[in-house]
Amino acid sequence: MSDAPKPPAQQVHHELRTAENSAGHVLPKLRAMKEKNPNLTLLDVGAGSGTISVTFAKAIPDGHVTAVDLNPGILPRAQAIADESGVTNITFQQADAYKLPFPDATFDITYCHQMLTHLKAPWDALAEMLRVTKPGGLVAAREGDLETECSWPELAGVQKFHSFAAAMIKFSGGSPNGGRQLLSWALKAGAPRDKITVSFGTWWYDTPEEKKAWAQGIIDNINGSRLRGAGLKMGLVTEADLEEMVKDWNEWAGRDDASLAMMHGEILIER
Amino acid sequence: MSDAPKPPAQQVHHELRTAENSAGHVLPKLRAMKEKNPNLTLLDVGAGSGTISVTFAKAIPDGHVTAVDLNPGILPRAQAIADESGVTNITFQQADAYKLPFPDATFDITYCHQMLTHLKAPWDALAEMLRVTKPGGLVAAREGDLETECSWPELAGVQKFHSFAAAMIKFSGGSPNGGRQLLSWALKAGAPRDKITVSFGTWWYDTPEEKKAWAQGIIDNINGSRLRGAGLKMGLVTEADLEEMVKDWNEWAGRDDASLAMMHGEILIER
Repeated sequence: MSDAPKPPAQQVHHELRTAENSAGHVLPKLRAMKEKNPNLTLLDVGAGSGTISVTFAKAIPDGHVTAVDLNPGILPRAQAIADESGVTNITFQQADAYKLPFPDATFDITYCHQMLTHLKAPWDALAEMLRVTKPGGLVAAREGDLETECSWPELAGVQKFHSFAAAMIKFSGGSPNGGRQLLSWALKAGAPRDKITVSFGTWWYDTPEEKKAWAQGIIDNINGSRLRGAGLKMGLVTEADLEEMVKDWNEWAGRDDASLAMMHGEILIER
Repeated sequence: MSDAPKPPAQQVHHELRTAENSAGHVLPKLRAMKEKNPNLTLLDVGAGSGTISVTFAKAIPDGHVTAVDLNPGILPRAQAIADESGVTNITFQQADAYKLPFPDATFDITYCHQMLTHLKAPWDALAEMLRVTKPGGLVAAREGDLETECSWPELAGVQKFHSFAAAMIKFSGGSPNGGRQLLSWALKAGAPRDKITVSFGTWWYDTPEEKKAWAQGIIDNINGSRLRGAGLKMGLVTEADLEEMVKDWNEWAGRDDASLAMMHGEILIER
């Protein structure tokens, strides 16, 4: 039991992210680069509460991680997570992915996760990431593809929620199917095709604990004022839709045969 | 150049399958079991031309693989592939997945890939696989989920082809979204929930060579008499649709920014 205020469900889920579960395609290359140079510098763009950044910092104990986010409000939480982990080779600061406040060729590795899909011009952010990365360095991204999300059983309220979530991302100018577009964005950012490696990864939930946590996060979001208010105002959902979503997410979480999976697009760009 | 008849495109693609690329979720467990017992016996159900079976046989050189398929016509091709590979610890035979011609508890590992999605009652086949597997053994399956297939750019003819392929599987009683249903099928087959491990994997194509090979296989299929004839007869497609599919697959294969990915559901059941 703790009296500390409970962080929002979305944040709780984001804080489960680590370099191991969210940057698996980067780690083998990072380790090879570390062999040659233990003092690697890594930039994490759109780091949020920084759980991935902190695990990157642990992976390069003689290097340094700079973690930036557009939202300055998240930075104290990120610093607290680093402090709790005893990680000191990390710096947090506010920054806009379109205008990174760093000179050309500053970092060995520049990384982002679930960031480009929220942007109107993700290729411009990728070009910025390429700019601040040293020649011989690495730019890496991993972005979800909401339209590949598949759940079982196929409950109407769960499927409605997925469509609603995709519509919200589209409405704010993002790309719910960003995962499949990473290669095209990288080319548009000016990366040569033969320097780009494409892969696809997955995450999924099927255990009772995972399903309960995931569904509860979504239900809290549906019942929260922000998503609910925006969805109703834009006419994307009705009160009845929202009720059906909550009912069906609860049913999904309680069923032994339920699972949910989604693909992520992944790219590595050699600078 | 060779005068040998060219195998159908579908078969060419199937023959790229190996245990490494199509049974990655099984191999760590198989290796652990082999440590304890080098003489493992493995059954591959719906093995087709047996390329996965042959790589399994190589992985257990002191064990034995039995590879079965409903279609006796494929067995000579499978035997030829084994012979070419110099693999001798393998036997091919005709068998129906619903009525496997083996006593209870015959095999240490029973495996299938892209087989259950084609059946009307996949849980009955899984129950048969459980029956012929020894207590302490392993049943493993990997099945595609066509509805998660995502391609970029989103060309109308490519998307029409995906819908057409899914409709054809449905029409013959199968499940184009089988990948996400594996857990529910395993429970329906009588497997206890705590003996089932779920995972999801991907495959994708993004290099010029892969894209050309994949698109050509599909174009050959579209132009071939079987798929074309069946689709037209059932009213699932028109001649104009088929032309658009060929045109757009050619465009897709020729584009630098094109990619295609799909998820597979995977299960391991401890017997």
